[in-house]
Amino acid sequence: MLPNIIDKLYAAVEQKGHVCLGLDTDLSYLPPDFAESNLSLREKIVHFNRQIIDATLDVAAVYKVQIAYYEALGIDGLLAYAQTLQYLREKGALVIADVKRGDIAKTAEMYAKAHFEGMLEADFITVNPFMGMDTLQPYYPYLKTGDKGIFALVATSNPGAGDIQGIVAADGESVSEKLGRMLEREGEQFLGECGYSAIGAVVGCTNRQQTVRIRQRLPHTFFLIPGYGAQGGKAEDLKDYFQDGNGGVVNSSRGILLAYRKSEYAGLPFGQAARAEAIRMRDEIRNAI
Amino acid sequence: MLPNIIDKLYAAVEQKGHVCLGLDTDLSYLPPDFAESNLSLREKIVHFNRQIIDATLDVAAVYKVQIAYYEALGIDGLLAYAQTLQYLREKGALVIADVKRGDIAKTAEMYAKAHFEGMLEADFITVNPFMGMDTLQPYYPYLKTGDKGIFALVATSNPGAGDIQGIVAADGESVSEKLGRMLEREGEQFLGECGYSAIGAVVGCTNRQQTVRIRQRLPHTFFLIPGYGAQGGKAEDLKDYFQDGNGGVVNSSRGILLAYRKSEYAGLPFGQAARAEAIRMRDEIRNAI
Repeated sequence: MLPNIIDKLYAAVEQKGHVCLGLDTDLSYLPPDFAESNLSLREKIVHFNRQIIDATLDVAAVYKVQIAYYEALGIDGLLAYAQTLQYLREKGALVIADVKRGDIAKTAEMYAKAHFEGMLEADFITVNPFMGMDTLQPYYPYLKTGDKGIFALVATSNPGAGDIQGIVAADGESVSEKLGRMLEREGEQFLGECGYSAIGAVVGCTNRQQTVRIRQRLPHTFFLIPGYGAQGGKAEDLKDYFQDGNGGVVNSSRGILLAYRKSEYAGLPFGQAARAEAIRMRDEIRNAI
Repeated sequence: MLPNIIDKLYAAVEQKGHVCLGLDTDLSYLPPDFAESNLSLREKIVHFNRQIIDATLDVAAVYKVQIAYYEALGIDGLLAYAQTLQYLREKGALVIADVKRGDIAKTAEMYAKAHFEGMLEADFITVNPFMGMDTLQPYYPYLKTGDKGIFALVATSNPGAGDIQGIVAADGESVSEKLGRMLEREGEQFLGECGYSAIGAVVGCTNRQQTVRIRQRLPHTFFLIPGYGAQGGKAEDLKDYFQDGNGGVVNSSRGILLAYRKSEYAGLPFGQAARAEAIRMRDEIRNAI
């Protein structure tokens, strides 16, 4: 059995709980003393992220960095993105680059190179499999090393998720269910000791019936679960995603980054407020599942 | 009737033909004298692109820049990407940023800001609609100005395209066909004088039967057509994509960028070889449709 990044994520969940902390850092999220400081835009974001990371390292199983927030600020923002990833690596934290790339052949090879090597390197990336299973293959050489993994979109948590993912085939199976089975099959070649593969799935926490059907079809697939908190997902809906208390992480971004604005954390520095909210979320999930 | 970017693209096709020139510039594509020069990596790519652009401005209806090739080179590559887009704007050329973004709500707003404003600004971007129609809405404020457009993936030309896009619903319609109808409906609010909307579709040229069904369902949708040349698509297969000789552009990347290596263009500088190949392709398509 080769080393496998999914075993590291599994162990992190055992140790720290199920929180995936989303560093979707928008400039408007920065506390006033940051926003008004003389730091450059890039420095403001990186310093904010570092303090959030420092305060939550023992509570967050993994971090997810949404590249769109950085890309919106141009090259300077992408430098902040690179420095955030680098800081997470230095701290020994696991990181999912939420880039949702989905392309084929040489183009996908280029994305693999961009996000699994060099200055934008991450442990996992999210991918969009709409173009088919051959969009995943260019990532396999990296998965084979045991150092890298991917999370493919399967059933997202947004209002329009059903438009495509919810189309039901003549055999009664939805696009999400069919796609899930394809991913489970592809993942067989990348199984870790924990029983999960390095091909994970993004499965949102807003449709419980669907979750049950997808979990049944994907017993060896680790879930990245969006939609908790800001998008309306509740801890009691999460039970069906897990198997023996593991097999998934639950993302929260704004709920943690902006905890310092909540009345229950009034007076706490933003890092400590984020930590308190991450601990609250961790315990809420543990109690629910 | 407001000004609409799709009218500009329609007029460019009338004037210049159907060639969409893909600037998927890989370092390995550069001629030896470039590769061995003392220029920085970024300069090499930008200089190469500029010479290709200068030589093809009157033959290419639009350029498509595939961001993956630049992203693979990190921040320096993304600077080359930004400078290429800027040069195209200076020359008055239309440009499609092939970024295939697909995300929701505030994240998609960030992508819109990244690619429709600032240093990465393009006229059109490609989007991946797998997460649903609400992934498109954050781009609509830009489409409403008449200055911007999107091309959504509908039926791609890669071998695995059928995995998801080819799933057939109980009513006999495929995912691509259903998606196409949704896009056509969304596009009604962004119709230009030419009869096409600012929501275009990526429809590959490798499945002719499917093309006929999709074109019938999408009479007001402009097509971005990949798969010509390197992916095996032939000019005689293209007829069914067009209506009165317009309504689509056909992408070629490597076929044009690497024309200088073909025996028929031996001795020509790479820019002139690219021009000769773009003219050959333009005429081949005009004759076929």
